Amino acid sequence: MVRGPSSFFLTFAPVKKTDTNMSLIVVGSMAFDAIETPFGKSDKIVGGAATYIAWSASNFYKPIKQISVVGGDFPKQELDDLHHRGVELEGVQVKKNEKSFFWSGKYHLDMNTRDTLETQLNVLANFEPVVPDSYQDCEFLMLGNLVPAVQMSVIEQLENRPKLVVMDTMNFWMEIAMPDLEKVLRKVDVLLVNDSEARQLSGQFSLVKAAKEIMKMGPKYLIIKKGEHGALLFHQDNVFFAPALPLEEVFDPTGAGDTFAGGFIGHIARTRDISFDNMKSAIIVGSAMASFCVEKFGTARLREITKADIDARIQQFKDLVNFEIELAAENL
Amino acid sequence: MVRGPSSFFLTFAPVKKTDTNMSLIVVGSMAFDAIETPFGKSDKIVGGAATYIAWSASNFYKPIKQISVVGGDFPKQELDDLHHRGVELEGVQVKKNEKSFFWSGKYHLDMNTRDTLETQLNVLANFEPVVPDSYQDCEFLMLGNLVPAVQMSVIEQLENRPKLVVMDTMNFWMEIAMPDLEKVLRKVDVLLVNDSEARQLSGQFSLVKAAKEIMKMGPKYLIIKKGEHGALLFHQDNVFFAPALPLEEVFDPTGAGDTFAGGFIGHIARTRDISFDNMKSAIIVGSAMASFCVEKFGTARLREITKADIDARIQQFKDLVNFEIELAAENL
Repeated sequence: MVRGPSSFFLTFAPVKKTDTNMSLIVVGSMAFDAIETPFGKSDKIVGGAATYIAWSASNFYKPIKQISVVGGDFPKQELDDLHHRGVELEGVQVKKNEKSFFWSGKYHLDMNTRDTLETQLNVLANFEPVVPDSYQDCEFLMLGNLVPAVQMSVIEQLENRPKLVVMDTMNFWMEIAMPDLEKVLRKVDVLLVNDSEARQLSGQFSLVKAAKEIMKMGPKYLIIKKGEHGALLFHQDNVFFAPALPLEEVFDPTGAGDTFAGGFIGHIARTRDISFDNMKSAIIVGSAMASFCVEKFGTARLREITKADIDARIQQFKDLVNFEIELAAENL
Repeated sequence: MVRGPSSFFLTFAPVKKTDTNMSLIVVGSMAFDAIETPFGKSDKIVGGAATYIAWSASNFYKPIKQISVVGGDFPKQELDDLHHRGVELEGVQVKKNEKSFFWSGKYHLDMNTRDTLETQLNVLANFEPVVPDSYQDCEFLMLGNLVPAVQMSVIEQLENRPKLVVMDTMNFWMEIAMPDLEKVLRKVDVLLVNDSEARQLSGQFSLVKAAKEIMKMGPKYLIIKKGEHGALLFHQDNVFFAPALPLEEVFDPTGAGDTFAGGFIGHIARTRDISFDNMKSAIIVGSAMASFCVEKFGTARLREITKADIDARIQQFKDLVNFEIELAAENL
């Protein structure tokens, strides 16, 4: 990849590490969003998959080694804030004469569906990610929703295969880049999609059947996100269900899926345990983080929450689904 | 109520009781359905809310004291089968020169929505329920979905207020009999509705807000059924969520809500415990029973299942939602 003077990488002091022998890489967009919901309208605010993932995962693990691309318009303050949270930015390219990716959308009343009003690819149009040498200790790789070929490029640049590769994607890539998407699917351990995407990818309406088909495409684990209806984790013949927290208001769902992914991978990286049982916990952590995300526009709520808030929210999830039952049917 | 020779009550030998000091009354339709799904089409088969409730609840408790009305066309074999299961039929009127209630409907591919093709009220058109003296020991009252005035009549005929009154209803009554429905709501402890009905009844889109509004109308407990997305139990500021079992096929959803209600009230009657914690268990039992119901047309699957099947299914629900988690966010 050739970079002229208009493209450079960020230099920050290294983040103090939790553990010196490993790291978590997060790949994805860092961008601007403008959001309309039935409750209000945001200005052009900071968003992007990798932004949400980093804000979420950094509650559990650092350093997070970010790979992304932004334009000269991306606020320095946001980068400082992320670095302060433990996010390494050496892999973030800044194209100072270009503009950051921009998306605007409008949510319907049910908050489960939205219309895209405008998409400006800008710096994402020809993004070629570069994995810095200092990222080669990667143990966990979180591929946020992005062009499949970019996700693949990061996988191929890593000298050692990470312990766990988690990938998010969306229907858009199934429509315009399916061959590339299929190639990446063969390389990942865990795939995250929503219910309609699982149906589209598999051609199956039943999510149980869809999961079986998708696990034949490469991922050994599949997480199907159902928004306000929770999330399912599939692995071989096992299935686990995590509810979404019933909320009085979903203020803005933007980034909830990325925040979920950040909580999931953050918990996995913290515990370094990739068993099915620990993935269950990771999904609860992801669901808890997503439940904060939707409470305010953009990353606002993720910036406020404390460890105590997160612990209390996870306890709410326990209370929400925990039941004791003696096996019920007696011979009458 | 005046009954001519064309209307009579059934006489069967009394059912051997689990407990001599109490009983469970089930009120609702016993009817015929004709069902079309994407997987097939049934003949005119036995259905009706009280039929499903009785088949389901009789796994957990007897006697069940049934209150309903059928026409001369209702099969004697079905009544014999129910009686053999422990269902008292003294409160079931037979109008031998009339026809049983009939409903036919067609499900859409998602199995969550359906079109009614035909409704023949027949015997239900002027049903006046009569509570036999032998039913006056009622401790638990399950009001299946039915004309609100009929539900009210049963409540008013009981000399002692039952320990728990559970009511199912549907959007249809909200549209044509709201004043009557409101009167019954003030008399019941637990209301069962689906998510769209909860929204319609409360005028609130958020289910958490809807629950708060509905609990002001009378019920201290509210169960919102979300079909394949599980069920929520609300009481004061508490909420509990039970998932639906992810199934490869939902063959026929008809009666799933009634079967859920039957499992719920059956478990409550068996344990005689009306605490919030025990209602959680009752909802899991109801969900397990509903997951059987949808596997075949009509009550076919409910007729086959054994205690071992039910125990195994409840264990699947435990496995589906059970997780262990140490509180996740550490100070990094």
